[in-house]
Amino acid sequence: MMEPTSRTELSALGEFGLIERLASRIQLSQPSSVKGIGDDAAVIDPQGLHQVVTTDMIVEGVHFDLGYMPLKHLGYKAIAVNLSDIYAMNATPRQVVVALALSNRFPVEAVDELYEGMLLACRNYGVDLVGGDTTSSRSGLVISVTAIGAAAKVDIVYRNGARDKDLLVVSGDLGGAFMGLQVLEREKAVFTGSGAQPDLDGHDYILERQLKPEPRRDIIELLKKMGVKPTSMIDVSDGLASEALHLARASGLGVRIYDDKLPIDPSTYSTARDFNLDPSTCALNGGEDYELLFTVAQSDFEKIKGNPSLSIIGHMMDAASGYHLVDKRGGLHELKAQGWDALLKR
Amino acid sequence: MMEPTSRTELSALGEFGLIERLASRIQLSQPSSVKGIGDDAAVIDPQGLHQVVTTDMIVEGVHFDLGYMPLKHLGYKAIAVNLSDIYAMNATPRQVVVALALSNRFPVEAVDELYEGMLLACRNYGVDLVGGDTTSSRSGLVISVTAIGAAAKVDIVYRNGARDKDLLVVSGDLGGAFMGLQVLEREKAVFTGSGAQPDLDGHDYILERQLKPEPRRDIIELLKKMGVKPTSMIDVSDGLASEALHLARASGLGVRIYDDKLPIDPSTYSTARDFNLDPSTCALNGGEDYELLFTVAQSDFEKIKGNPSLSIIGHMMDAASGYHLVDKRGGLHELKAQGWDALLKR
Repeated sequence: MMEPTSRTELSALGEFGLIERLASRIQLSQPSSVKGIGDDAAVIDPQGLHQVVTTDMIVEGVHFDLGYMPLKHLGYKAIAVNLSDIYAMNATPRQVVVALALSNRFPVEAVDELYEGMLLACRNYGVDLVGGDTTSSRSGLVISVTAIGAAAKVDIVYRNGARDKDLLVVSGDLGGAFMGLQVLEREKAVFTGSGAQPDLDGHDYILERQLKPEPRRDIIELLKKMGVKPTSMIDVSDGLASEALHLARASGLGVRIYDDKLPIDPSTYSTARDFNLDPSTCALNGGEDYELLFTVAQSDFEKIKGNPSLSIIGHMMDAASGYHLVDKRGGLHELKAQGWDALLKR
Repeated sequence: MMEPTSRTELSALGEFGLIERLASRIQLSQPSSVKGIGDDAAVIDPQGLHQVVTTDMIVEGVHFDLGYMPLKHLGYKAIAVNLSDIYAMNATPRQVVVALALSNRFPVEAVDELYEGMLLACRNYGVDLVGGDTTSSRSGLVISVTAIGAAAKVDIVYRNGARDKDLLVVSGDLGGAFMGLQVLEREKAVFTGSGAQPDLDGHDYILERQLKPEPRRDIIELLKKMGVKPTSMIDVSDGLASEALHLARASGLGVRIYDDKLPIDPSTYSTARDFNLDPSTCALNGGEDYELLFTVAQSDFEKIKGNPSLSIIGHMMDAASGYHLVDKRGGLHELKAQGWDALLKR
C-alpha cells in the first residue's frame, strides 16, 4: 500500500479516539437516520416502509490485495457492493454500519483514507454511516459492512418471482471487473519480478470496473420511470451464470442464456483475447460486475428493447428444460456456477 | 479447540453449500421477519416501530482464545453481546445478521457448533438470524454480528438523557467476567506449561459470566413493570468506569460513584483476592459484564431501592463537579476509563 506522508499510531488515538475522529467527519443526511454514531445502537425511523438488510465481509488476502488496491478505493468498494444488494431488492439504501479489524501496521492516516472512500460512496448514494465497531486484528484488514434500505412492501423484488417465459435482462456489461483483476495481477507479478513500473495504460475502463464498481441505482430509477417492475432480481457479484441459476432455482424454473446476446465491452473483449481467455466465459463466470440481473414479463419487451443500458440475454423456461447456455451455432451447454467462491480461494 | 469426532472440509461444501446447510436449520419466529436467508437482503416489517441497529466484530486472538473458549459458547456470546446493546436502548432485539471469516483449519463440524451457539442465543431471546456472509480468512476466525431491534420512538433511551441529581443504577453484579477470564488464562498457562488438567472447580459463576454472558432482557422487562423509564442507559461492556463516563459526558454532567455500593459477587471477590487484585478495581474496569447501567429520576428511588437485581451506586452531578469514585473513607478519586481497549491489545 502507499505510505502516507505522516504516520500516527492507532494506539495513540485508541478506539474511542478513533470513533470520535470518524464521528466528527459525518453529517447525517437521511431524514430516516434519527441517531448515528455515539450510542449503544443507531436509531432509524422506517417512515412506514419495509426495511431490507444485507451484510458482506471482505478480508485482506482473500478479497483484496493492498498491493494494488488503494485504501480509498477499497473503502468505496466495500460500501458499493452492499448498496448493490439493496438495489437488487428494488429498495433504496439509507444507512450503513461498518465494523473494521485493523492491524497495527495501519497508521491513523490509512484508516482516514479508508473511511474517506466509504464516506464518498455514502455521499454519492445518499446513505448515512450510522454506526460501527473498530477493533484490532492479528494480521490482515477485515471490513464488514451491513447496509439497510427501505421500500414499500409492494415494491420489493425477490429472487423467486420469475415466471415461465419471462425475459432475462442484465444491465451494463459483463466480465470487465474480472479482466481488470487479471491486468492488476499480471502487472503486480511483473513489478514484483523486475521492479518495472506497472503498465496499466489503456485499461482504464476495466480497472475502474474492478477498483471502483458503481451499484446500479440508475437502473432501479430507469425501470421505475419505464413502469417496469421486475418479477425477480439479483445483483451480479459471483458471475452471471451463478446468479442466473439462483433466479431460476429460487423461482422453480429453467433458464436459457444466449451467448451472442452477452453484453461485453470492447476493452473487456480485447483484453480477454490478449490473455487467451474466452470473453464469453469471462462474462459468464468473472463476477464482481455488480450489474443487475432480472426477469420481466414478455409484455414489457417493448419498453426494454433497444435501451442501451439493458440487454435481453435470454428467458426463463419450465424447470424440466434445465439451465443452458445457447452457443452461436445453437448448441446447448449446461449452465454451471463456476463463480468465484471465496471459500475455495485459500 | 476441541476436535469434533468427524471432519468435513469446508471446501467440500463451498460457500453456497454452507449457506444452505445453515438456512435449513433456521425457522423464522419473529412476525417482523418477512424474508430471511436466501435473497440479496433480508426483509423486515418494522410494524410501526423505530428500528435500532448495532454491530460488533470479534477477532480470534484479540477478543477470544479458542484454547479455552468452546465454539458453541463463542457463538452464543457473539450474539449475546449485540443483544445487550439493543436492550441498552430500551428496545427489543428481533433480527441478527452474521458475517464470518473462517480459515480452513475449521471443519464444517466446527462451524456447526459455532452456529449452534448462535441459534441457541437467538432462540433464548426470540431473535431471528435473517442473513449473513461466510468467507475464508488467511488466519484466525472473525465474527461480525449486526443486531436490529425495535421500539416505539418514545420508549428509546439514549446515553445523553441523564439529568443532574439522577440516581445511577446498575443491574446484577460486576467484575465476574473479568475474574473468569483471569482463571481461564491462569489455567491455560498451567496446562500449557505442565500438561496438568486445568483446575476450574469452584469458579462456575465467574466462568459462566465470561463464557456465556446473558444480556439483561429481564431488567428491561422489570423496569417496564415497575413503571420506571431510565433517563439514560448503556450496557457495561468496557467496564463500569468507562460506561459511567460515557453517560456523564453524553449528558453534559458530572458523576459520583460510591465504592461501598459496588455490587460484587462473593466468588468474584474471593477470586480477586486470590489473584491479589482489588475487587473494586475489577468491578470498575473489568468489563464484559453486560449488565445495564442507567440513570433514573430521584422520584423513582422508592421503586428501585431494595430490588435484589438493582444497585444504586451513585448519582449524577453538575459538570463542574467532575467524575469521581468516593472511597470508603469519603475520599474522592478521579474516575478514569481504564476499560479494556481492543486497539491496545495487540
